[in-house]
Amino acid sequence: MKIAVIGATGMAGRAIFEEATTRGHEVTAIVRNVEKARAELGAGATLLVSDIFDLKRATLEQFDVVVNAFANHKEAYLNLDAVTHLIHEFRQSETRVIFLLGAASLIQANGTRLFDFLVELPGNEAWIDEPRYGVLELDILRATPDVNWTGVSPQQNFTPGPASEHRIALNDLLLSADGKSHVTAGNMAVGVLDEIETPQHIRERFTVSDM
Amino acid sequence: MKIAVIGATGMAGRAIFEEATTRGHEVTAIVRNVEKARAELGAGATLLVSDIFDLKRATLEQFDVVVNAFANHKEAYLNLDAVTHLIHEFRQSETRVIFLLGAASLIQANGTRLFDFLVELPGNEAWIDEPRYGVLELDILRATPDVNWTGVSPQQNFTPGPASEHRIALNDLLLSADGKSHVTAGNMAVGVLDEIETPQHIRERFTVSDM
Repeated sequence: MKIAVIGATGMAGRAIFEEATTRGHEVTAIVRNVEKARAELGAGATLLVSDIFDLKRATLEQFDVVVNAFANHKEAYLNLDAVTHLIHEFRQSETRVIFLLGAASLIQANGTRLFDFLVELPGNEAWIDEPRYGVLELDILRATPDVNWTGVSPQQNFTPGPASEHRIALNDLLLSADGKSHVTAGNMAVGVLDEIETPQHIRERFTVSDM
Repeated sequence: MKIAVIGATGMAGRAIFEEATTRGHEVTAIVRNVEKARAELGAGATLLVSDIFDLKRATLEQFDVVVNAFANHKEAYLNLDAVTHLIHEFRQSETRVIFLLGAASLIQANGTRLFDFLVELPGNEAWIDEPRYGVLELDILRATPDVNWTGVSPQQNFTPGPASEHRIALNDLLLSADGKSHVTAGNMAVGVLDEIETPQHIRERFTVSDM
């Protein structure tokens, strides 16, 4: 399939780019910085150089699936703005768009969202915007019937590392064998590519966890 | 003041354009169709010809206040997309932006939103999207601390007509002397210009009603 990855030089985007390439797909990395992309993805990587906010429907519809792995941890409002921009461009389109979301909207064992726990933590001012906007992104996607979207959340700890064994769920925060909530970028990439090749979660969010 | 009105050829936008002009402000109509704008606003109207989605920060920041009166009743998702586009462009900006919202997010006497009533009406499929997206627009604005925004809702019936007497509230659906919820475009324009000249509702929504 023709797959584009926005933010392909980030931790998640790079793992997805590499998993898609390994599986033989025709993969394009949508990036801003050519030198960084060549260094991280290899000299042979197919690049489309664009700021996410300059991407328009005509460009995006060249692909079968677009994966949005854009993430800005310092200016977290840009993550929300990127989602709403892509929603606008993908409305009424058949092209699939897969949004990497945060973990804060996942439901804990006590029935509340992880965000409800995070927002009560003292000293969260420096980082609470990112999960706050992440929750809103999913709310907006769920109010978007005319985009062929899928959301995918990592677990609470989203770490570098290769694929091993993973499991998926819809909305639950999951605990791995060590009793903690985590997923590697490698397992996340496998979960995303499985979903691309065999769609199971059209217009819903799922989550990938380490075993 | 330098005021721009997006959607100045619509019912609300035109009334606001005219009220602002009458009060001596330096008013620019942001429109797509020059001929329509000249016909409706007069040959001397200052026009800026642009699609709302092409408006960028550098253009918008020429003004002291931008009023978003864009409204698409057939493709109501564009109203939401216009709001999120403007939020993106106005982040971290001092320039004020006033969003004309719908009435569906107003609170009825029984404590529920007008939308909660509308969504239960049989046969609402043809028009429920517009109030549904309108509610979401306000939710998103309320989650936007870094834009100098004000929201203004009409009442349930928003009709052509001149200014007479009006009153304002924050979030309540109001009943006029005839026991019905309505506001004319003329009264709405007076309420908006009063707010522009004497800011009372920074980062909140207010509503204007006929007396």
